[in-house]
Amino acid sequence: MAHVFDFRIYYEDTDHSGLVYHANYLKYFERAREHVLGADELVRLYREDGLGFVVYKAELSFREGARFGDVLQVRTRVQLESEYRAIFHQAVWRPDGVKAMVEGQIQLVCVNRENRLVRLPAGVSGVADG
Amino acid sequence: MAHVFDFRIYYEDTDHSGLVYHANYLKYFERAREHVLGADELVRLYREDGLGFVVYKAELSFREGARFGDVLQVRTRVQLESEYRAIFHQAVWRPDGVKAMVEGQIQLVCVNRENRLVRLPAGVSGVADG
Amino acid sequence: MAHVFDFRIYYEDTDHSGLVYHANYLKYFERAREHVLGADELVRLYREDGLGFVVYKAELSFREGARFGDVLQVRTRVQLESEYRAIFHQAVWRPDGVKAMVEGQIQLVCVNRENRLVRLPAGVSGVADG
Amino acid sequence: MAHVFDFRIYYEDTDHSGLVYHANYLKYFERAREHVLGADELVRLYREDGLGFVVYKAELSFREGARFGDVLQVRTRVQLESEYRAIFHQAVWRPDGVKAMVEGQIQLVCVNRENRLVRLPAGVSGVADG
Repeated sequence: MAHVFDFRIYYEDTDHSGLVYHANYLKYFERAREHVLGADELVRLYREDGLGFVVYKAELSFREGARFGDVLQVRTRVQLESEYRAIFHQAVWRPDGVKAMVEGQIQLVCVNRENRLVRLPAGVSGVADG
Repeated sequence: MAHVFDFRIYYEDTDHSGLVYHANYLKYFERAREHVLGADELVRLYREDGLGFVVYKAELSFREGARFGDVLQVRTRVQLESEYRAIFHQAVWRPDGVKAMVEGQIQLVCVNRENRLVRLPAGVSGVADG
Repeated sequence: MAHVFDFRIYYEDTDHSGLVYHANYLKYFERAREHVLGADELVRLYREDGLGFVVYKAELSFREGARFGDVLQVRTRVQLESEYRAIFHQAVWRPDGVKAMVEGQIQLVCVNRENRLVRLPAGVSGVADG
Repeated sequence: MAHVFDFRIYYEDTDHSGLVYHANYLKYFERAREHVLGADELVRLYREDGLGFVVYKAELSFREGARFGDVLQVRTRVQLESEYRAIFHQAVWRPDGVKAMVEGQIQLVCVNRENRLVRLPAGVSGVADG
């Protein structure tokens, strides 16, 4: 089952082509990940434990461009690759769409205050599939 | 009575000072205005009548910076200055705050496809005070 | 004499109206201020002395919208209001324009690591007029 | 030989981690592509022929995060995959770096006003390797 994050396309999201600027889909995926992981938990990890998530790799496929006024969803599934790396399978959908508009695979790792790689916190396994 | 728009501060909103980047408050105000005016009506005005709203003047006062993870509100009141000009009094608040964090006065006009000034559409008077 | 900062309008700067998104002019003004004050000095102040500049008030007037591909200038003059406050008079111009496209007055103060107001560093008086 | 585009990291580019927000690297790559292809030619193609470039796929690998004040380069090589598809191999480097900080492969196609796929314009082959 995918986690669903609803969002809306505002003026700020579009460019002069009339469609959403391509880099913004990485923002929507990241907003959705914050909801999957829990913003409060992310704030706590950052302030108390000095831990932060870092994008290590990202792959994006663009099929259909979104427009001003669209109300859309990011659907997210989380896969643990190892104790250190999680892959977020994320896609932008129209709520009633038959195909994703944009698909992404976002690999995340976790680093401490010294920017050293550390094991993924327990919260990530909690949201991962299988 | 103010119109209330709830929003959240994501990673993308902050800068390396740890606080929200100052220009982003103009974005939050604009998102809120789209909800006040109705995104569907804005899309219809734009596609069918070729009308769009343009910011003519903006005044901002910054009192307290927002941080990652904050859940905030834009509170908006609309004042008609003339048949051609509306002032949106907008402010960012913590839901339980005693003082606004950022305050703005945003003056809007309406232009047609030739970028000529036209009378504000009826929808704007509908949301204005008094 | 104004300080001149040259910049270019990219896809990312525009919105679906075909013009530059209004909030972005605050970004161009801020980029120009970093060049006026010197990025190296700003980095040094921040890392060594824990000092940062904060926008306290901003007033913007929008006259003409910029478009994709435009090559423009921010022209900046600095006025010291007091030992604590500087006003940056900034405007976006076409290099051969007869009138500014967008004008701004940006008031800056300086804060320390505890977010307390401190005197403006010497570097600011050095770039101020009169 | 790679095309080199110089750029600078401003406040707006960073997030509260202290590093550049990951989505922004797609912006730097796109700015560099506009310089490779020529902004004037892009404007002409868009206004006269109704042609625009669209990102179809993007792959990004993040190795080292950039910081406020960094002066960096995007290095770009263009590879024609077919008459319809070009791959831009792009990477962010410190001018004196020994390894790229961020690497990307950005696949572009060209569409007309009806959003239909068309052959890449002649200008693209002109900048492609081999």
